[in-house]
Amino acid sequence: MNEPVYDVAHLGRVELLTPDLDASLDFFVSVLGMDEVERVGDSVFLRAWGDYERASLRLTAAEQPGVGTIAWRTTSEPALERRVAALEAAGRGIGWEDGIAGIGRSYAFTDPDGLRMSIYYDSEYFAPSDGQTPTLKNQPQRIGVRGAAVRRIDHVNVWCRDIDRNADFMVDTLGFRVSEQAVDGDGRRTGAWLHVTPKSYDLAYGRVDPADLGARLHHVAYAVDAREYVLRAADVFLDAGVRIEAGPAKHAVQQTTFLYAFEPGGNRVEIITDGRLLLAPDWRPITWTPEERARGQAWGTLMPESWFTYATPPVAAGQQETEHA
Amino acid sequence: MNEPVYDVAHLGRVELLTPDLDASLDFFVSVLGMDEVERVGDSVFLRAWGDYERASLRLTAAEQPGVGTIAWRTTSEPALERRVAALEAAGRGIGWEDGIAGIGRSYAFTDPDGLRMSIYYDSEYFAPSDGQTPTLKNQPQRIGVRGAAVRRIDHVNVWCRDIDRNADFMVDTLGFRVSEQAVDGDGRRTGAWLHVTPKSYDLAYGRVDPADLGARLHHVAYAVDAREYVLRAADVFLDAGVRIEAGPAKHAVQQTTFLYAFEPGGNRVEIITDGRLLLAPDWRPITWTPEERARGQAWGTLMPESWFTYATPPVAAGQQETEHA
Amino acid sequence: MNEPVYDVAHLGRVELLTPDLDASLDFFVSVLGMDEVERVGDSVFLRAWGDYERASLRLTAAEQPGVGTIAWRTTSEPALERRVAALEAAGRGIGWEDGIAGIGRSYAFTDPDGLRMSIYYDSEYFAPSDGQTPTLKNQPQRIGVRGAAVRRIDHVNVWCRDIDRNADFMVDTLGFRVSEQAVDGDGRRTGAWLHVTPKSYDLAYGRVDPADLGARLHHVAYAVDAREYVLRAADVFLDAGVRIEAGPAKHAVQQTTFLYAFEPGGNRVEIITDGRLLLAPDWRPITWTPEERARGQAWGTLMPESWFTYATPPVAAGQQETEHA
Amino acid sequence: MNEPVYDVAHLGRVELLTPDLDASLDFFVSVLGMDEVERVGDSVFLRAWGDYERASLRLTAAEQPGVGTIAWRTTSEPALERRVAALEAAGRGIGWEDGIAGIGRSYAFTDPDGLRMSIYYDSEYFAPSDGQTPTLKNQPQRIGVRGAAVRRIDHVNVWCRDIDRNADFMVDTLGFRVSEQAVDGDGRRTGAWLHVTPKSYDLAYGRVDPADLGARLHHVAYAVDAREYVLRAADVFLDAGVRIEAGPAKHAVQQTTFLYAFEPGGNRVEIITDGRLLLAPDWRPITWTPEERARGQAWGTLMPESWFTYATPPVAAGQQETEHA
Repeated sequence: MNEPVYDVAHLGRVELLTPDLDASLDFFVSVLGMDEVERVGDSVFLRAWGDYERASLRLTAAEQPGVGTIAWRTTSEPALERRVAALEAAGRGIGWEDGIAGIGRSYAFTDPDGLRMSIYYDSEYFAPSDGQTPTLKNQPQRIGVRGAAVRRIDHVNVWCRDIDRNADFMVDTLGFRVSEQAVDGDGRRTGAWLHVTPKSYDLAYGRVDPADLGARLHHVAYAVDAREYVLRAADVFLDAGVRIEAGPAKHAVQQTTFLYAFEPGGNRVEIITDGRLLLAPDWRPITWTPEERARGQAWGTLMPESWFTYATPPVAAGQQETEHA
Repeated sequence: MNEPVYDVAHLGRVELLTPDLDASLDFFVSVLGMDEVERVGDSVFLRAWGDYERASLRLTAAEQPGVGTIAWRTTSEPALERRVAALEAAGRGIGWEDGIAGIGRSYAFTDPDGLRMSIYYDSEYFAPSDGQTPTLKNQPQRIGVRGAAVRRIDHVNVWCRDIDRNADFMVDTLGFRVSEQAVDGDGRRTGAWLHVTPKSYDLAYGRVDPADLGARLHHVAYAVDAREYVLRAADVFLDAGVRIEAGPAKHAVQQTTFLYAFEPGGNRVEIITDGRLLLAPDWRPITWTPEERARGQAWGTLMPESWFTYATPPVAAGQQETEHA
Repeated sequence: MNEPVYDVAHLGRVELLTPDLDASLDFFVSVLGMDEVERVGDSVFLRAWGDYERASLRLTAAEQPGVGTIAWRTTSEPALERRVAALEAAGRGIGWEDGIAGIGRSYAFTDPDGLRMSIYYDSEYFAPSDGQTPTLKNQPQRIGVRGAAVRRIDHVNVWCRDIDRNADFMVDTLGFRVSEQAVDGDGRRTGAWLHVTPKSYDLAYGRVDPADLGARLHHVAYAVDAREYVLRAADVFLDAGVRIEAGPAKHAVQQTTFLYAFEPGGNRVEIITDGRLLLAPDWRPITWTPEERARGQAWGTLMPESWFTYATPPVAAGQQETEHA
Repeated sequence: MNEPVYDVAHLGRVELLTPDLDASLDFFVSVLGMDEVERVGDSVFLRAWGDYERASLRLTAAEQPGVGTIAWRTTSEPALERRVAALEAAGRGIGWEDGIAGIGRSYAFTDPDGLRMSIYYDSEYFAPSDGQTPTLKNQPQRIGVRGAAVRRIDHVNVWCRDIDRNADFMVDTLGFRVSEQAVDGDGRRTGAWLHVTPKSYDLAYGRVDPADLGARLHHVAYAVDAREYVLRAADVFLDAGVRIEAGPAKHAVQQTTFLYAFEPGGNRVEIITDGRLLLAPDWRPITWTPEERARGQAWGTLMPESWFTYATPPVAAGQQETEHA
């Protein structure tokens, strides 16, 4: 058995593309309760009150919604160098880039589907200014009291064309570990949940893209402290006129409590909480058969069609295959 | 900067000594909601429903309450060997022992105060039998529905004579990281909270032992999923006649929500929940000054004298110094 | 304006008919966490830990599932006599009956659809025996720690043929007040929620019976203290193999948090919590139009077909009309 | 046995006197999350998001903190007239006054200690304007998302000189019912909790005033939906620099979950939640002996001296007796 690799520390920042930057910004600030920290060009950088880094979300104006670059922080500078070497050896490296908005130099790469990601180590901790200075010094800033008041970035879920290939790439080059996976009748994966932290997933290849495009975003997730706050987020969304897609309810896979909604730019956002930590260093991936997945969510919650068919950027009508579980 | 070491995965098992094994066992089973898994000699092994290993608690009959061996799981077999080498180099190794109740061979050692600990890698995952088989296969067993229904072991807090010396030992030989610490006017530590997981602490040297003995137990902690369940535990304790010492309330240090009570053998137990994960690989320890600690718990909760003066094994009257913050 | 009448105090007891008494009993005891208090003939009487009366549920063996007698406690003996007079004047009285299992003499009657109900004043408070004596004397017994541990009976929901007629009857003869109602395009009610306590409903005529039978049970509801406990009930149901029908989610009508499941006898049971009290003595009923109801539950939760079509006793296939919103 | 009287519906409005109107207003708006609805002279009227009437709090500039008029809504106009007659018969009536800020004509009176109260029936329901219109029409306005976001007024607690005399007065003239009471060794009451709704108390004579003044305010309480929100209020208070006095914790008397803090004018405010409803029309008051009360709060929470000695208006040093439990 190989030793586990601990070179990637956690998900650092997700870039969302939006055709309506102002409306998307208002959603993340007024409804999710995040704070704007910086603007650079067509991008606005935001943070949740519990994120220790300066910004965990980058909103970038674009013609279509979707995901831009997903950035991962490494555990050290040597770890960064080791992973860059592995990415170059895999032939998937793009190269070094200047960091932005609190992140230092970053090495960009793509997964086999072309999803753009980067790794970095150098990162600026958030320094609260006057109105944000918390009473307890072990907290990055005051607790959030606006809207759903999400605490921290949690994970990102994308669709790809070949889950085995993409998941193996993340495992082999970056040391991600598979916590749970779904397979079809031939044993090919139809979903893979990967983690680098003891949270049970930090990245999901959630589904084989029915449009056969790949590198499309299913959702970005922000965490709250308890299930009650997922319910409260739904109450907040209801009064704010946000389109709720599904939940609050509980996934069978990973057992997380979820709430899915759409931000005005068209991207799906998840509010999540999880009581489980996967502390085992030799966790054996849980494998879900088609029969087991057909039982649906933990409590049998009915999911709308869109949850199985819509990702960003969206595909034109007719372009998308309709098969789904 | 040195790279962080990820050789110790998590706290695996705590041994509690009890002068009333039957009563202690009844407390952990009926009130905390844990399950007995095995008996060997004078010891009974127990697990919480969310522990993935076979047993996280060992109750051992003894004349006095206190803590026996604290066992830590490593992230791999080579990691185990590296740490054993470091312990031997530090001159604190005791030697290899046969494992017990699901744990394989273990290497025993002491910290500078003589607190007995061990490290191991080989571990048996819990295999639920019929009445315990959960509906969701990603869960070790059915969710707990008895008493406080604690989910998993969380941490252990001990008092020692010299916190700098003991904390440094855990950092240097095993790769523990200090997340928070308290200091006196001379900069000497009066408390240190250390972690190997992204939980903000797995081990605490909570206080300089006023009796100058060291290696005494302040408490062992079990986690529940949300703050409501810490309150519910207090309700359960109330009706069960358990002696509550303090809480539910919120610590300033670490911000965890706590409830302290005494098991019938005389050891202090904590029920805890925490919404925070310390994901930063380069976390700079939070340092609390005497003035800051004098502000007390997060919400100003008054703590009883015993919380500052009682540890197990208890000391005879007159033997204990009385100074405390 | 007439003065409100405060002669009926609260829902006292619901009788459920079950074709599998043993399995139903096991569900209410092991899964819902209720206690058996007495057996009389083919009936078993049960209580939730927070019910102040001896028993709030009567399970009676029968060929078909369904509802037996629904009993309401009056606010005084004179109030009882006034309501009996009103029932007799309305021509719907059946007559006095001996009480049973803690309830004194009761006056039975039917609503216009033939739903059997009774009113009584004389009632025995629950007296806990040794293992049930709570530490706090203002509590009927120890808090529940088994299964979903429901606290108290909440309400009953039945289907009838003519909601205007039945709701008006309860208002006119017993002083029930309508808190919310749904209407069709002609202004005829398609649902009515009535209350005698500041809970926003104690009785619902939830739907015009599509089978045109009436006096059929949609569900009986038991309350828990907070939304987290509705979620926990779903977790308990999942591991206990209980068939969850819908939820946890939030109703638009009444805003209650719900979870629907089936007990083994075939009756639907709801676990509910509600943060709202209707304290206004002159509350003007909220009226929901067909367009408003078409928006569905508060968070848009999809409800399964059965929730709109199944009541007990069930109707044979083909007997039931299929129209529903 | 007399029939219960249901002429008083609920607590309608509490007037707080404050020497710092601006600071008090900012506390109730920014920290508790209430909304200002109207200003008249030296008074500002406020509401919680779940109050159905226009305003439940009146802040009035004054030299000293304390309580002004406590207003109760009756269940009907005839009920109002009956209670006015009873007050006049008792010789404690002051007379009719014009209503203000949504309340119609009111009849003022004092309790035997001189505490000023009023009763009224005519009341304006809150009509939300654009930004406050809720998505669900059965809710007075959008759910609160600012600060502690309290839901509705709950109760008021005052100290008086003779609890038997004052409590009897409220029972005899207005139909209040005693749910719980504390007595001294001679059977004289040392505390009385009274209710008109199925909440277990709406008014408390919490303590024999150690300063022998009476008509002093211990606290006014606002309710939240669940215990988690009492904890969250404490977190909000912590970051807002509010002085927390005690809690969150659980009272033995009434079992409510409490949090006490001081608003900038010097008055004590309680955040409360309660899972219990006293639905019994013939509830027998729970009586706590001195020995039982000496056991303290439900979980043994230590209460600071001020909680037993401070009420508003405060008394000069030396003026106050120091005896307390």
